[in-house]
Amino acid sequence: MEHIPLEEPVDLLTGLATTRAIRRYTAEPITDDDLAKIMFAATRAPTGSNRNHFRFVVLRTGEVAHQAKALLGESFRSSWATKRATDSYDDGSGEIDHSPKARMARTMNHFVDNFESTPVVVLPCIRKRHGGMGDGASIFPACQNLLLAARGLGYGGVLTMWHSPVETELRALCGIPDDHAIAAVIPLGRPQGGHGPVRRRPIQELVFDGYWGTTADWIVEPDGTRHTQAGPPPSRDG
Amino acid sequence: MEHIPLEEPVDLLTGLATTRAIRRYTAEPITDDDLAKIMFAATRAPTGSNRNHFRFVVLRTGEVAHQAKALLGESFRSSWATKRATDSYDDGSGEIDHSPKARMARTMNHFVDNFESTPVVVLPCIRKRHGGMGDGASIFPACQNLLLAARGLGYGGVLTMWHSPVETELRALCGIPDDHAIAAVIPLGRPQGGHGPVRRRPIQELVFDGYWGTTADWIVEPDGTRHTQAGPPPSRDG
Repeated sequence: MEHIPLEEPVDLLTGLATTRAIRRYTAEPITDDDLAKIMFAATRAPTGSNRNHFRFVVLRTGEVAHQAKALLGESFRSSWATKRATDSYDDGSGEIDHSPKARMARTMNHFVDNFESTPVVVLPCIRKRHGGMGDGASIFPACQNLLLAARGLGYGGVLTMWHSPVETELRALCGIPDDHAIAAVIPLGRPQGGHGPVRRRPIQELVFDGYWGTTADWIVEPDGTRHTQAGPPPSRDG
Repeated sequence: MEHIPLEEPVDLLTGLATTRAIRRYTAEPITDDDLAKIMFAATRAPTGSNRNHFRFVVLRTGEVAHQAKALLGESFRSSWATKRATDSYDDGSGEIDHSPKARMARTMNHFVDNFESTPVVVLPCIRKRHGGMGDGASIFPACQNLLLAARGLGYGGVLTMWHSPVETELRALCGIPDDHAIAAVIPLGRPQGGHGPVRRRPIQELVFDGYWGTTADWIVEPDGTRHTQAGPPPSRDG
């Protein structure tokens, strides 16, 4: 796999194209200064009517953070065990399997087994207004800004929803009021090893010109674009 | 108001901090090449399990785009009329009022009155899985990437939800299948006039250290950070 170096400064368009999920972290903490920049960037994202009804609980060290990471670690391990079985991650050819699915399974094992050591865990919260997907429009842009800023400073993370089995306990532990949803959990740290390429489905499957299914033939992917096999192909699941 | 020039290339962290809602566009079209870059950046955003179950219908010229923009224009005008009344935008001191609310009202009037002339309108769609906010985690990061890429290339846009009154007609017009939600509408174009500063609530209201309400005193906002009065203060609405 080619590796994209994480040097600064990163150009905006390059950053957008090279920010990928990072699930293996070194033990290095994130400095106050860098974390402040990351959180500042997160809060520059838009919210409906610029209402700023997003809130972020940042878990680093200390007793509450320690307990919250442990609670989340249990939840992540059980969520991954379920997904591993449901999505047939164990159907490969064992430990030496180099398929993308086998590599992903090893990464996920490492991720959940070491969750408690994650340097920083951010809980992005949103005050509930309409319920449903619309509330997400005021928090997930900020989550993306957060991940992009981390990338810009040489860190990485991943947007996960695996807190849901323990949301009630997590809410109590961190004092999150009932009228706010915990929209996601974002672990952050310095990437272990290389930062591989972002892989997506071919863009002609994703972007349509003027009408659903009409090919946008004016889009040509940049040279070197890598594709994923993740997710069912469009013929079965489009 | 100070204006941030839109020259290239924009540094990633700068781009994150200076991308704001743009609602006044020149008549200049977005070139195929730039629009391809914007859509490529959008599709580099994460989706749950890298499932890539987001789709984007790009409306530019042609009969369907023309009809869709007209349908959305009606919907935006009626949504703004409702908001204008509900949120007391008319309580200011008339046309010469320079309050932020009065300025916003003038911008919104211009935005909805000229919606049909918007160079590009993107409909970000997401295949419905769980319903609720979680589905938004796989589409709103891409919306943010899209807006950031537009910023990086000297364009601007805004994430809006004002298609909801006409979602059924819009879906029929653009051939969007029933199992996909239209998550938002993103108009895009070259900004008219200057690109003002991003204004948010003071960051200490938004980011907490380890526990809800605990001040993150390691965060200092950069010099020149501008605050908004938008949205109710936290004491009434936090």
